[in-house]
Amino acid sequence: MKASDLGERGIIDLIWSVYKSKVGEEKMRSMPLPPPDDASAVPLPDGRYLVLKADMFVKRTDAPPRMRHYQMGAKSVVMNISDLAAKGASPIAFLFSLGVPANYGASQLRQLMGGIVSATEEYGAPLLGGDVGESRDLVIAGFAAGISRSLIKRSGAKPGDILATTGSFGETAAAYKILLEGKEAPPALRKALCRSVFCPRARLREGVRLAESGAITSSMDSSDGLAFTLWELSRSSGVGFRIDHVPVAKKAGEFAKLHSLVPLDLALYGGEEYEIVFTVRPSMWEEATKAAGGRLIRLGVAVEGNSVFINQEGKEFPVADRGWEHLRRA
Amino acid sequence: MKASDLGERGIIDLIWSVYKSKVGEEKMRSMPLPPPDDASAVPLPDGRYLVLKADMFVKRTDAPPRMRHYQMGAKSVVMNISDLAAKGASPIAFLFSLGVPANYGASQLRQLMGGIVSATEEYGAPLLGGDVGESRDLVIAGFAAGISRSLIKRSGAKPGDILATTGSFGETAAAYKILLEGKEAPPALRKALCRSVFCPRARLREGVRLAESGAITSSMDSSDGLAFTLWELSRSSGVGFRIDHVPVAKKAGEFAKLHSLVPLDLALYGGEEYEIVFTVRPSMWEEATKAAGGRLIRLGVAVEGNSVFINQEGKEFPVADRGWEHLRRA
Repeated sequence: MKASDLGERGIIDLIWSVYKSKVGEEKMRSMPLPPPDDASAVPLPDGRYLVLKADMFVKRTDAPPRMRHYQMGAKSVVMNISDLAAKGASPIAFLFSLGVPANYGASQLRQLMGGIVSATEEYGAPLLGGDVGESRDLVIAGFAAGISRSLIKRSGAKPGDILATTGSFGETAAAYKILLEGKEAPPALRKALCRSVFCPRARLREGVRLAESGAITSSMDSSDGLAFTLWELSRSSGVGFRIDHVPVAKKAGEFAKLHSLVPLDLALYGGEEYEIVFTVRPSMWEEATKAAGGRLIRLGVAVEGNSVFINQEGKEFPVADRGWEHLRRA
Repeated sequence: MKASDLGERGIIDLIWSVYKSKVGEEKMRSMPLPPPDDASAVPLPDGRYLVLKADMFVKRTDAPPRMRHYQMGAKSVVMNISDLAAKGASPIAFLFSLGVPANYGASQLRQLMGGIVSATEEYGAPLLGGDVGESRDLVIAGFAAGISRSLIKRSGAKPGDILATTGSFGETAAAYKILLEGKEAPPALRKALCRSVFCPRARLREGVRLAESGAITSSMDSSDGLAFTLWELSRSSGVGFRIDHVPVAKKAGEFAKLHSLVPLDLALYGGEEYEIVFTVRPSMWEEATKAAGGRLIRLGVAVEGNSVFINQEGKEFPVADRGWEHLRRA
């Protein structure tokens, strides 16, 4: 059995099975944010939580062709900040370990660092330190620490809660079709779509304010794809979801039309989109909308059961339980 | 200019030069533990410090032949804990990002995880989370968080302070000569020496107690080699060091004798030895010894000036300013 047979999620399962056999499942369940939540947490004496996240960017698998080194640096920060955001944590530190190939150029390194520094400044995550070693792949292993007053888990959704998100979906899936499959698009559309992959942004302000509003019951970032995110929230909370509306990004819709693709597929089965997907107490929708700056999108509602399905004119269509995964050779 | 021309320390200098040009030198100097200290720190509201460390283990460059995967996992923890220890911080969390080759075996992965879990348990550093991705090299990017009541920097040594350490040196340098250069040694000696590289231990208890004793003025772990550590403490504190005694490990001495090597060279110019090297207020030597469990070794004394030299029967011999460095093609 090899890593590529297990896939990323199989490896993560193996990791925690070793942990459980040596340390015990109870200790794992007693964590403030037990795996597989977006991040980890440690209670602080003042009642708040230290939220910690490790997320790694490997150029060979995570950078599509034509991504600049500045953008790789910035994205390695965004990936980590987005998970803090989904847990309602404000960043207090960013560190990274950098694996560089021996022939990596100093000017590329300077650009990469420029991206890391700019993104940490943008999100108010002080860059405090790092480590450097040699590896054949360019590897940026980012590590973010944040503080949360009100930790939002993946597991708090109740039937009746409103399912919502901070933005629309599908641009990155379209961009990957351009960048990896060579699909065509007019220059302006192409540029806008590729920007979603090259220059993603984390919903930090929205995440922190939503958590502090007291209106939300579960939360997760959508970086592994919308469909996978919905299924994860469903599994963690023990609820199902009826989806009444999938917000397809306008430009993803244009791209789908050009190539006769199903817009819904682009929106559901993409990845690397850093929106926050969460559930809202039905009585507090107004508060949640206000917390998110007036821009909440209603996806549907949490229901009894354990399935995720789209409701279209009274008919139910299943949402497939799949998403982006490293190391998976499908 | 390539990474291998810059070397690890050149890359780190480049990283901080980008930071300084974008953020400003003042912000860097105002950090509780400014680079290049062993770790980074964030003040907590209760007066203590959150201490954070990122240190990466890459199998291809950091694992000598015959190192087991269990040992690699454990060492990736020890590397990080040792830096917390040198700053007087008790661990509260360990996370890691794992880069695995597609053909990495599940049983090796299980052993690797066993090492990570055992070491985190041994040092009381709760394993809270991780990330998995694909890379051509096996990469373990560890992240440790700890809490310190009394942060010990590299920069606090004053002339007259006693220079001390927690153990003897030279075993790892001898082990690398066996493992990398094929030098011979009787089985028992060989085994004991290789153990220093395969199964290092961090001086966590000593580091935390020394910091809390109030007796020490500067501190650093010796993982880049004793000579380099002495020079770093000298540079950071703006003092010189007169070395009166270099503690050569007994087995390193035996090995040196076998191969007509200079024992002092093994002790000074090795690396991957996780002792703590620190300076003690002269009036508090007893307190420091007690804090370290009675096992302090006196190396010498901090003096005016900026050089590190060995004092032998009244004659002075310079200590070379060199140590282990990644990516350096010398």
